[in-house]
Amino acid sequence: MPFSETLKSIVESVEGGLGAIIMADDGIAIDEYFLDGAGMDLNLMAVEYASLLKEVKRTADVLKTGMLEELAVNTGQSRVIVRIINDELFIALILGRDGNYGKGRYLLRREVSGLRERLS
Amino acid sequence: MPFSETLKSIVESVEGGLGAIIMADDGIAIDEYFLDGAGMDLNLMAVEYASLLKEVKRTADVLKTGMLEELAVNTGQSRVIVRIINDELFIALILGRDGNYGKGRYLLRREVSGLRERLS
Repeated sequence: MPFSETLKSIVESVEGGLGAIIMADDGIAIDEYFLDGAGMDLNLMAVEYASLLKEVKRTADVLKTGMLEELAVNTGQSRVIVRIINDELFIALILGRDGNYGKGRYLLRREVSGLRERLS
Repeated sequence: MPFSETLKSIVESVEGGLGAIIMADDGIAIDEYFLDGAGMDLNLMAVEYASLLKEVKRTADVLKTGMLEELAVNTGQSRVIVRIINDELFIALILGRDGNYGKGRYLLRREVSGLRERLS
């Protein structure tokens, strides 16, 4: 699992970090790191976010506002930040409700170029 | 257009603000304020984001992570922050690529409770 150290470092560097996952557009998880007891169904989350991302990409295409770079979804219990790695892969960071959203976004942005090189 | 002053105040208070719109889930714009020359097709944007929001709500339901509160989509040319007002209405703030995302999120969060009262 060559990326788990990077994922672990991201999750443990952000307050409220619960887990991070690199996935393909078809909902297959490439690598993941989740804290014990994060209480999430990872497979379901992978499939659901991959499916959602297709819709968001389609919306960006229709609106002609450039390539999708980042998607963030905040709900009553979680904050999910998704950052595009390349045409096929993305990384998702899951934070608890009071997680440090700004730092999470910063860390994903910082790590994505390195991931892009290693995954190309 | 009773909400246009609030929308104008949000757009003009954030660096890179291009426009803001209150919409219903069915893609009908309730009120809007856009800078001249923002270069966006508002009707298309309303319909597309309303449609996308349904998918995001569905995802939040499936994952059982609480009610959707906020969605943000960053693309090559724009940053769109959507905040839920109530079951039927949401507000979207559109910023240029270098817009102040943190301040935009803060302003929407601050204004939504007032909008909720006026719209209920």
